[in-house]
Amino acid sequence: MSDSRQYILTNTRIATMQEGQDSYGLIPDGAIVVERDAILWSGSKADLPREYADAQVHSLDGRLITPGLIDCHTHIVFGGDRAREFEMRLEGASYEEVARAGGGIVSTVKATRDADLETLVAEALPRLDALIAEGVTTVEIKSGYGLDRETELNMLRAARRLAELRDVRVKTSFLGAHAVPAEYAGRADAYIDDVCIPALQAAHAEDLVDVVDGFCEGIAFDATQIRRVFEAAKALGLPVKLHAEQLSNIGGTQLAAEFGALSADHVEYATDDDAAALAKSGTVAVILPGAFYTLRETQMPPIDSFRKHGVPMALATDCNPGSSPMTSLLLTMNMGCTLFRMTPEEALAGVTRNAAQALGMTNQGQIAPGMRADLAIWDVKHPAELAYRIGFNPLHKRISGGAL
Amino acid sequence: MSDSRQYILTNTRIATMQEGQDSYGLIPDGAIVVERDAILWSGSKADLPREYADAQVHSLDGRLITPGLIDCHTHIVFGGDRAREFEMRLEGASYEEVARAGGGIVSTVKATRDADLETLVAEALPRLDALIAEGVTTVEIKSGYGLDRETELNMLRAARRLAELRDVRVKTSFLGAHAVPAEYAGRADAYIDDVCIPALQAAHAEDLVDVVDGFCEGIAFDATQIRRVFEAAKALGLPVKLHAEQLSNIGGTQLAAEFGALSADHVEYATDDDAAALAKSGTVAVILPGAFYTLRETQMPPIDSFRKHGVPMALATDCNPGSSPMTSLLLTMNMGCTLFRMTPEEALAGVTRNAAQALGMTNQGQIAPGMRADLAIWDVKHPAELAYRIGFNPLHKRISGGAL
Ligand SMILES: [Zn+2]
Ligand SMILES: [Zn+2]
Repeated sequence: MSDSRQYILTNTRIATMQEGQDSYGLIPDGAIVVERDAILWSGSKADLPREYADAQVHSLDGRLITPGLIDCHTHIVFGGDRAREFEMRLEGASYEEVARAGGGIVSTVKATRDADLETLVAEALPRLDALIAEGVTTVEIKSGYGLDRETELNMLRAARRLAELRDVRVKTSFLGAHAVPAEYAGRADAYIDDVCIPALQAAHAEDLVDVVDGFCEGIAFDATQIRRVFEAAKALGLPVKLHAEQLSNIGGTQLAAEFGALSADHVEYATDDDAAALAKSGTVAVILPGAFYTLRETQMPPIDSFRKHGVPMALATDCNPGSSPMTSLLLTMNMGCTLFRMTPEEALAGVTRNAAQALGMTNQGQIAPGMRADLAIWDVKHPAELAYRIGFNPLHKRISGGAL
Repeated sequence: MSDSRQYILTNTRIATMQEGQDSYGLIPDGAIVVERDAILWSGSKADLPREYADAQVHSLDGRLITPGLIDCHTHIVFGGDRAREFEMRLEGASYEEVARAGGGIVSTVKATRDADLETLVAEALPRLDALIAEGVTTVEIKSGYGLDRETELNMLRAARRLAELRDVRVKTSFLGAHAVPAEYAGRADAYIDDVCIPALQAAHAEDLVDVVDGFCEGIAFDATQIRRVFEAAKALGLPVKLHAEQLSNIGGTQLAAEFGALSADHVEYATDDDAAALAKSGTVAVILPGAFYTLRETQMPPIDSFRKHGVPMALATDCNPGSSPMTSLLLTMNMGCTLFRMTPEEALAGVTRNAAQALGMTNQGQIAPGMRADLAIWDVKHPAELAYRIGFNPLHKRISGGAL
């Protein structure tokens, strides 16, 4: 008897991306049974149990199906844009001149504080839509351009609102420890104690925080300051993650590992010892080639160390108005391969299975029974094409939570 | 009295990109009068002559309008794809192993020879559509993967067919001198005489050739061999252009200048003297950052020399299955800025006015009376945003030959 809540996808090649399988976990002639928002069964079509024989069948005409893509590191909620600053730099302006013209992160903080909730949401929507158009079904969104209590909360409210406006899952990260605001210049400790931690507590009380993030860098906060934020997170029962070792090595990765962080992000300057620590703590290394490309960095993340120690690698857009105004996760995959010599399979794992792990989601990022039915269907012959092509979107259809 | 063949675009900021003007030739509150396929009038709305007062008005709600984009260097007609080769290399395969597995340009030549005309057209269409979706109104398409008479002609026939299937102008380049095919290995001179020049003559007889191109490089043809092709072109009255100085300097740019070529393309290894020669011959330098990015090159084209000598610079995707599988001209603009430190204004001139010049088109690439009404309307505030954003398409609408 047919169950109207069930349907079957057939005539498809499935890149299951299941843990522990080689070659994308590829099933050449596969079938997937979806019930409500979950995958009930997946495997070779020849093995399809007879009990599903009457469910509605959708042929995918030989197309490739992968888990829905997951962008696990973005700053897509912000005010203003920095195109004019980009132009000034290329016209030869010095950092001082840009700063005098109101450029840099300061300009984004000002524009974000000036924007109301509706504006923050409206301006983030086209960015979110660009991600969704490439098969993204889950996106992480950070605060961190408010740097005062009300604006930090407003950014997270905007992130929650985006999840209501689009058929996409949003994970929020509180990033009060992103930068020291001008009014606390030279008083980073006071900012952490007076603003950052109280804002975190207020945001948590409003259920706005899924994870707590920080920026551990010479130009932001040192490991001692981040530790205080992480201890506040721990007291609230919240998991942590960290922007670590992007421009130098000041111990962020080790701190992240000590706290069992979900992820350590950027990590260009991480060492082999840092990689070993991440492996031990089960922390994902989130690779962000968009910022590396935009800032014309030359220090590559220690990909070989991550491989050697078995650190899962994720890839994300890092979409932000300063160092990575990028809204393409497919291009991020290409950059991971081209710039960092990741393989196309590592790139796809980086935006599916490992990205899910970086967000602490256990029912996402793989095609297997029990997983959420977040899927992407592609007009490509081989999964390597997803990373190979540059600036081309072969998405045929996206399935979010089972909805065709 | 209203003329039904006329309409006016108002409430728009116009980046006219007119020769000799600064700051994108920007008109903050502009109007454009279109009649049939041409621009009849453009300027500040306040100056709109009364004779157009009755024409139909379309408000662009403050959006930016630019000339339609022009991709002046592509290889979008080809058979097969090279995703698996991309993957093999990243998995550590040597060039020998890739070659043994049938990779490299040889694989594209084989797949292109095996494809019939309909297949070549069908496989190129999604690539062309990706360009069009970003506001491209003119695209150059090369032969060069046939390397035998019939397939070279078939590629050009496919290019002509694409122009019939889509509302886009296509300029064809005969690129028989792209590589020495396996059957002529070690006999490049014989290939030029026996195949390349006769194929050019046959293609010209079928009216398939707008420009004659070549690849002057150690791995392809030397300047003496290209000279013979250029002389054959001259005898047919066809203009020339050249892939020159991409991987080394072997005199291609000087040869191109000597023949008054429309463009010299790649030119990473061009010298200041080469730039001076291009300036003298009125030849455009076509900058191709996609191949530079994909091949992880480090030698940058001499942008400052081009500026100093007043060589017009164009930017193009170089879309091809090996060294630049890229179908985004907006991303090309960003790469020109990020990788080569071009300004956003140079980048926009590179895909409008200077790209038109590189194709020998005098009625394209600028917004001015008499120019063809090929226009792109963008959801951006400032033209710098077009080069600033990465993997985002803000196109609102494209106008090709006056058709709204
Ligand atoms: Zn970040
Ligand atoms: Zn080329």
